[in-house]
Amino acid sequence: MSDAIVRCDVTAGVARVTLNSPGNLNALSDAMLAALSAQLEALSQQNTVKAIILRGAGKVFCAGHDLKEMQAGRAAPDKGAAYFADLFARCAALMQMIPALPQPVIAEVHGIATAAGCQLVASCDMAVAAEGTRFGVNGVNIGLFCSTPMVALTRNIPRKLAFEMLTTGQFIDATRAAELGLVNRVVAAHQLESETAALAQTVAAKLGDAVKTGKQAFYAQAEMSLADAYAHAGRVMVENMLWRDTDEGISAFLEKRKPDWAQ
Amino acid sequence: MSDAIVRCDVTAGVARVTLNSPGNLNALSDAMLAALSAQLEALSQQNTVKAIILRGAGKVFCAGHDLKEMQAGRAAPDKGAAYFADLFARCAALMQMIPALPQPVIAEVHGIATAAGCQLVASCDMAVAAEGTRFGVNGVNIGLFCSTPMVALTRNIPRKLAFEMLTTGQFIDATRAAELGLVNRVVAAHQLESETAALAQTVAAKLGDAVKTGKQAFYAQAEMSLADAYAHAGRVMVENMLWRDTDEGISAFLEKRKPDWAQ
Amino acid sequence: MSDAIVRCDVTAGVARVTLNSPGNLNALSDAMLAALSAQLEALSQQNTVKAIILRGAGKVFCAGHDLKEMQAGRAAPDKGAAYFADLFARCAALMQMIPALPQPVIAEVHGIATAAGCQLVASCDMAVAAEGTRFGVNGVNIGLFCSTPMVALTRNIPRKLAFEMLTTGQFIDATRAAELGLVNRVVAAHQLESETAALAQTVAAKLGDAVKTGKQAFYAQAEMSLADAYAHAGRVMVENMLWRDTDEGISAFLEKRKPDWAQ
Repeated sequence: MSDAIVRCDVTAGVARVTLNSPGNLNALSDAMLAALSAQLEALSQQNTVKAIILRGAGKVFCAGHDLKEMQAGRAAPDKGAAYFADLFARCAALMQMIPALPQPVIAEVHGIATAAGCQLVASCDMAVAAEGTRFGVNGVNIGLFCSTPMVALTRNIPRKLAFEMLTTGQFIDATRAAELGLVNRVVAAHQLESETAALAQTVAAKLGDAVKTGKQAFYAQAEMSLADAYAHAGRVMVENMLWRDTDEGISAFLEKRKPDWAQ
Repeated sequence: MSDAIVRCDVTAGVARVTLNSPGNLNALSDAMLAALSAQLEALSQQNTVKAIILRGAGKVFCAGHDLKEMQAGRAAPDKGAAYFADLFARCAALMQMIPALPQPVIAEVHGIATAAGCQLVASCDMAVAAEGTRFGVNGVNIGLFCSTPMVALTRNIPRKLAFEMLTTGQFIDATRAAELGLVNRVVAAHQLESETAALAQTVAAKLGDAVKTGKQAFYAQAEMSLADAYAHAGRVMVENMLWRDTDEGISAFLEKRKPDWAQ
Repeated sequence: MSDAIVRCDVTAGVARVTLNSPGNLNALSDAMLAALSAQLEALSQQNTVKAIILRGAGKVFCAGHDLKEMQAGRAAPDKGAAYFADLFARCAALMQMIPALPQPVIAEVHGIATAAGCQLVASCDMAVAAEGTRFGVNGVNIGLFCSTPMVALTRNIPRKLAFEMLTTGQFIDATRAAELGLVNRVVAAHQLESETAALAQTVAAKLGDAVKTGKQAFYAQAEMSLADAYAHAGRVMVENMLWRDTDEGISAFLEKRKPDWAQ
């Protein structure tokens, strides 16, 4: 199990998913994309898992696509066109799977997060970074503009700063990433695991259905007009109010006691 | 009048609307929603009112919905389904009335602004907070995810930070709220009234029709593509240019004198 | 050439376009709009130009529209209605031309950038500001709400802060502009030219087609849903991968050597 390209352990409702390919900086190779997608898909079915942490083994979080594998794809008669189209489709599906998962996903980031690795951070619901971590969408440096990472990045940070990262290929550090909204907080390297775990446990302790329904509504309403967003969120609130556990949660609050939740 | 659940006094073109139900932390009860909506509706018809301040009496700004009243709604044969749907519709209508008002609305926030109270701050055009004020969308703590407050919150602050507030239920302080864009500025508690009043007076001193038309265009263009936004804003600019008072305002500026505005 | 209302010099792939009408604070007069649009149109056709710097001669970057000229437009039988509609259409076309240019455009800002001058900064892809520069959308002070500048501004900075600038007419300084995302960085006045040039040269040194394609996708995907944005960006990535120079760029990176790019 410890040799698998993606490892997963679950403790107290929190799944820790580890990209385990330190030899190529946890690159999003075909194998990694398949294993990570399968792992997340499996976790999405596990009701006892209330939060997911995504992290990298070794010196870095994730350095993006596997460039050697991509170059090898050029050997095909079509110069790789079909392979690349399929690769970016699989990668985009993974990135869009994260906001679609029922559980919140927290990136635990150290070392570097570059190109599709930075996209992975941006695609997570939350992120905690170790001091010294560096973030970049630096494909432009080798002639491959980070167009798909851009989709996630621009939905996290202000426009001009995203443009700068994308066209200069320069890195920002963890502190700057927090200022811009790419990560939620920066912690000392030796506290990265414990702080990320604490955040995950905080979320995991909530009523799971409320978090699940709320996360779903979070991304749905983000793409709606104000009026449509309110109509949608209002329906979600009514549904939420009618659950037995929410009735119990509110009653417990009013009676200044702990809720007795079935979940 | 001073016993009314919503108080309003108007001085020099600025209306101060006070949520006046300190006993339940200015909760947005059925009565409060009705009174506040009626008050804002009345102010929308008063051309001499150029800016509106929204504030809370007692120790806090607003602690959100009236949970006792909501729980009482469960006694109905449908377990409250119709009541909750109506409640969230009325609340959402109030929140959407604020950007639709002709006058800018400034939240003057102290103590706490939680759940729908935080939504009220987010729904205002601007906000000034006293040092020490705490903001939260903490319904998740009692099993009721703040889905409708989320609509307003996510249109104010970066995505990952909004997600964190919503799923952890944790509070942020006024300084953090200002960093994220939820409030415009933080002032000492003893200066909250005077600083908010000064901001309101600054706005109230402008040409009312320009502010009114501009505010309307502000929210309209925010939901449009760049091309549509420019087409819309261009029409607003032409209309604005053709007013007598704008002609006078520009002439006065060029002649280095004060404008003689009819308004 | 040095008397032209818009000057342009090109060095090492970087075009410096200078608004050269210091007598009226580089106002966007009919002549300036025409000259600047023509200059940018010409540069868009020059493949050897890889980045564009936009700057102002004299004491300020740009103070917005030419108010004297606008007032003169009122002499027409229609009180200027047709002229104003045409003026705002030409100005909006210029502002939308900037994100549509193949090259990144960097505003080099000093002194003041007000009203349509602030819009010009907001419309550029990136911006560097000298310490002490002041930014405002202050038309409201003379009765003309900055509705078209608002379109660009609100796509750069958080909502409540944009509303405050627009309705109070108050200025923000360069440091605040950087905090809000209106400019990328603030530098000492005596380093403004060299720092902006360095940023432009960094971008100009990248593979031109990658930057061009990436910039185009940047603004296209910004107006799409997440799913559509990924579909679009995925197609761009595939196209990018199939270029000879990108093959060479990736190979060079893997072989730890400099790429031999045709461009």
